[in-house]
Amino acid sequence: MLKVGLLGAGRIGQVHAAAIRAHAQSALVAVSDVHEPAARALAEAHGARAASTADILADPGIDAVLIATSTDTHSPLIAAAVAAGKAVLCEKPVDLSLARARACAETVGATPVMIGFNRRFDPNFAALKTALDAGEIGKTELLSITSFDPAPPPVSYVKVSGGLFRDMMIHDFDMANFLMGAAPETVMARGSALVDPAIGEAGDIDTAVVVLTYADGRLAVIKNSRRAAYGYDQRVEVLGAEGLLQAQNVPENTLVKSGAAGVTHAKPLWFFLERYMRAYESEWHAFVEAAQAGKGYPVDLHDGIRALAMAEAAARSLETGAPVRLSDV
Amino acid sequence: MLKVGLLGAGRIGQVHAAAIRAHAQSALVAVSDVHEPAARALAEAHGARAASTADILADPGIDAVLIATSTDTHSPLIAAAVAAGKAVLCEKPVDLSLARARACAETVGATPVMIGFNRRFDPNFAALKTALDAGEIGKTELLSITSFDPAPPPVSYVKVSGGLFRDMMIHDFDMANFLMGAAPETVMARGSALVDPAIGEAGDIDTAVVVLTYADGRLAVIKNSRRAAYGYDQRVEVLGAEGLLQAQNVPENTLVKSGAAGVTHAKPLWFFLERYMRAYESEWHAFVEAAQAGKGYPVDLHDGIRALAMAEAAARSLETGAPVRLSDV
Amino acid sequence: MLKVGLLGAGRIGQVHAAAIRAHAQSALVAVSDVHEPAARALAEAHGARAASTADILADPGIDAVLIATSTDTHSPLIAAAVAAGKAVLCEKPVDLSLARARACAETVGATPVMIGFNRRFDPNFAALKTALDAGEIGKTELLSITSFDPAPPPVSYVKVSGGLFRDMMIHDFDMANFLMGAAPETVMARGSALVDPAIGEAGDIDTAVVVLTYADGRLAVIKNSRRAAYGYDQRVEVLGAEGLLQAQNVPENTLVKSGAAGVTHAKPLWFFLERYMRAYESEWHAFVEAAQAGKGYPVDLHDGIRALAMAEAAARSLETGAPVRLSDV
Amino acid sequence: MLKVGLLGAGRIGQVHAAAIRAHAQSALVAVSDVHEPAARALAEAHGARAASTADILADPGIDAVLIATSTDTHSPLIAAAVAAGKAVLCEKPVDLSLARARACAETVGATPVMIGFNRRFDPNFAALKTALDAGEIGKTELLSITSFDPAPPPVSYVKVSGGLFRDMMIHDFDMANFLMGAAPETVMARGSALVDPAIGEAGDIDTAVVVLTYADGRLAVIKNSRRAAYGYDQRVEVLGAEGLLQAQNVPENTLVKSGAAGVTHAKPLWFFLERYMRAYESEWHAFVEAAQAGKGYPVDLHDGIRALAMAEAAARSLETGAPVRLSDV
Repeated sequence: MLKVGLLGAGRIGQVHAAAIRAHAQSALVAVSDVHEPAARALAEAHGARAASTADILADPGIDAVLIATSTDTHSPLIAAAVAAGKAVLCEKPVDLSLARARACAETVGATPVMIGFNRRFDPNFAALKTALDAGEIGKTELLSITSFDPAPPPVSYVKVSGGLFRDMMIHDFDMANFLMGAAPETVMARGSALVDPAIGEAGDIDTAVVVLTYADGRLAVIKNSRRAAYGYDQRVEVLGAEGLLQAQNVPENTLVKSGAAGVTHAKPLWFFLERYMRAYESEWHAFVEAAQAGKGYPVDLHDGIRALAMAEAAARSLETGAPVRLSDV
Repeated sequence: MLKVGLLGAGRIGQVHAAAIRAHAQSALVAVSDVHEPAARALAEAHGARAASTADILADPGIDAVLIATSTDTHSPLIAAAVAAGKAVLCEKPVDLSLARARACAETVGATPVMIGFNRRFDPNFAALKTALDAGEIGKTELLSITSFDPAPPPVSYVKVSGGLFRDMMIHDFDMANFLMGAAPETVMARGSALVDPAIGEAGDIDTAVVVLTYADGRLAVIKNSRRAAYGYDQRVEVLGAEGLLQAQNVPENTLVKSGAAGVTHAKPLWFFLERYMRAYESEWHAFVEAAQAGKGYPVDLHDGIRALAMAEAAARSLETGAPVRLSDV
Repeated sequence: MLKVGLLGAGRIGQVHAAAIRAHAQSALVAVSDVHEPAARALAEAHGARAASTADILADPGIDAVLIATSTDTHSPLIAAAVAAGKAVLCEKPVDLSLARARACAETVGATPVMIGFNRRFDPNFAALKTALDAGEIGKTELLSITSFDPAPPPVSYVKVSGGLFRDMMIHDFDMANFLMGAAPETVMARGSALVDPAIGEAGDIDTAVVVLTYADGRLAVIKNSRRAAYGYDQRVEVLGAEGLLQAQNVPENTLVKSGAAGVTHAKPLWFFLERYMRAYESEWHAFVEAAQAGKGYPVDLHDGIRALAMAEAAARSLETGAPVRLSDV
Repeated sequence: MLKVGLLGAGRIGQVHAAAIRAHAQSALVAVSDVHEPAARALAEAHGARAASTADILADPGIDAVLIATSTDTHSPLIAAAVAAGKAVLCEKPVDLSLARARACAETVGATPVMIGFNRRFDPNFAALKTALDAGEIGKTELLSITSFDPAPPPVSYVKVSGGLFRDMMIHDFDMANFLMGAAPETVMARGSALVDPAIGEAGDIDTAVVVLTYADGRLAVIKNSRRAAYGYDQRVEVLGAEGLLQAQNVPENTLVKSGAAGVTHAKPLWFFLERYMRAYESEWHAFVEAAQAGKGYPVDLHDGIRALAMAEAAARSLETGAPVRLSDV
């Protein structure tokens, strides 16, 4: 039984708390949050105790911590939790600063740390990866990722988010790394503020296209928008020598209504809590399994840093208008 | 070059005229109609001449006639055209009276006559038949036919139509015969007037379910409605020992709109002229090919009579509430 | 917190145990089974105790029982549990004997008992029902239910199952009642043993079509097969005056592979444990909510008896070849 | 009746001949080809005469010419046909040389000339354009075009083709212009030879991604591959403020086979002759209508030059690795 301390009782912390509880081999024992009442409420709901982060890290009865705090605390908490001998699952991104993320990796050294790129555990993307690895479409040539949020966040959030590439597309960079099995050689970004002019005034973009090139000539395209009126649009397709693999959106249900206005299917699941609920559960299963086996995690700190470097490269490319070599960031 | 006389210049006659003209090995030379101006207009549009039916049958320069007149004239015209030595393609049904249809067949004797069950030539149903014959789902077990018109005909038409089974479901009876490769043993019908009470007052139904049983235990279900608000619903599915084959509707186009109201695809093609345009062309190709080769037609008078007998059985079953053996009609 | 005793630790009992545990307002406290080690294993896995059924019923600390034992014990256990003052959720069917089921209802009297017609709680069928009730397709006219199992059960099971209508189609009878909002007037059945001759030798069928007629002229068709090589086929469609509503199958994932062999989507979820996992959870939520509120259940003993009467009528119709009035059974 | 001379009796010339013949207001009167027997065969099949190009242009009885010859002859033939007073429909591209194409436009002056960007007339893309213009998804933001051929051409063809951007992606550049209603500001290209190394050795690429940016911040992505094992992949999607519009592939038929291996739909129509047959017919209708009305064509020489300039910009971007402003080519 893995005894778990949860750092952060916000929206995503609550998702993780449910996954920890539902797993037959893990137990939520303590919850911390900068807002203590939030920690207390979540702890009570799951039969755990509220505690400070320091207490959790110091408690020898706690085997693992799940870091679901605000982004700026991720890398220091990773370092502290590893120093305290805990198994660590940390939400993405590792840090908004590539330098700090790299420093964190140096501090941590050889100890594996799992990073919460939950989409790798989505059953649809996981099935696509399995099919790729099984050679179902032969040699891969061209990857396309469509990743649109249903609605933009408040501009106040945008200002502290690190920007679209570090905050939103970072998931897609990791997805590209996951599916292509390699880091790209160059990153080329184009973007605009089309959804909300205030996002542009805040110095960010809300609509972007990034093209990645790989050493062996393969190509990838990532499209992001902060708004899709029909809900969370999360699609991947890969062209290979022998065919095409697509992971399509997951509809709310399978209802189809045919009427004078057309043949209408349900919309995609609205946002990440709906779409990736099963992914969070599978992610937690993978963490528990690896933590108990003492083996490496399926997605770790180095994956987190690689995705962050790609975000950094994309941001530079957007500024300069030219492609950026990943080795230059 | 097959020289063709067209009997009947109504809506379906016009469809056939275009198919005759478009075929590289047939030419439309004459058109007749009870309403002479209609014959003239259609003839002119295709560089043919208007003529009386008698003249067309008497003209030794005409090789084939296509009978697209009103139903009550079908069987006498078949007999006359065969007597005149023409190759004959006659629209369905052969007759509203099973007795007259059988008498027609006796008169005609061994001479083959093609009956216009156009749906056999629809590329989707034809592909389904090919897949069945290739054994793609193993032994067939259960056939389902969904066949809904977009909107009911005027009650005036219903009154002279011979009723839903002879006028509308006759296509589905032939489809069952086509796909199952055998005539059923029993026919069991249920029906109501739900779409338009006036149809019920006219002694007919507008919504029906018919179940067919076969000597080897196989089953078939046919569903008819005179109204589908979304357009012509023409679907077939067959369950077999190794899987399921479905021929789905053909949408107006492949456009998909995702918005706040859902994910909306185009409606099915509106009615038979839209949906079966290619079927009419293929039907004509099959007729020309068989007529020129002097070989049997892919669907003939006996198929027409078989479907009519099933309609007769269904009508009796609806009346009595009990299944009717096909051999009893 | 609803304290629950689970009677029956088999496959479906295990599903229910997980749902009871996952619910924030219910706790599994005891499990019984005719095979005591099974009860013990399941109890241990969920922190409950193994007990005899008599002990569970006698325990005043237990508020509710979930009956997931073999069918022949359902109606006596319902009566006993009601007598013991427990809230009761019993798996379908109430009994294989309509007479015994009715006797059970008389014994139970006014006390509500929930029957486990899980499919009403499937999110897809529930969404269809909601859309119907909202008038999205106007007045309903024609219901079609397709319900195929992936593979036939062993003949040994078939022999004690009560036959296809009571064992398998009973779910579809209840679905018809749920969606049509009324019991049918007549039931007409056709069936064969096509999947496995041994099923026929055992006096049962494995492929069936049932047509229901309603007092207001509406129609329904139910199709069953014990085998669909591609998995559990669970589809419903309803034609109404203003359109068509369909609840389609739920695929294993959203992966699509396009290759030389075609464009291949994932198969439907394999069987009821996969397809209806969420339905079982929702069913349990509905039970807990109603039990705590002391209000009626969304599906009760009378629904169970109605479905059973339809199965009885279908069995008679299959024997006699004629439709059977529901009021005659 | 528009009397038409067809220049070029190759594969695409044959498609046009059938469209000319099928149209009620046009007649094919003469066909020329550098290979005279080809002209003769095609002329005979349609009741026309074989002639030299010079004779056709000199014939006052010919109203219009359709130029379907090899690309290097397009711009001189356009100029000659306009000089001869013919209405002109010329296959794309106008020329492989942007300079020559521009010179042709200068020579031609104000006389409108239609260029055969057939895809604008595909019913699916046309429906998408109509929906965009009707504001169905609000303000457009991000266009994506997927355009894969089923199989690469021979390297001998690649060598004289002008390269992927001028030969293949030129269609997609025009589609972008058609749908976005504006020319882009910049063009950024990435590409590789992944399908066939011999294509790379010939100095061309077979897999490419191009990103377009627009003055108002909108973005477009075009993906090309010379090979899709499943057939011609021709999809377009546009994200707008209020939703997404997609034009999907057109399958060979609507057959779906569910079996142990999955749920398999038909492949997309194999290549342009199959997919765009209806587009060629509609294109011809649009030409005849505009020629007879003496009004401008829906797609003209300036569209042809714009697309060619984008191809030129893409080629330069691929070479330099940097985006190219369209105004710089």
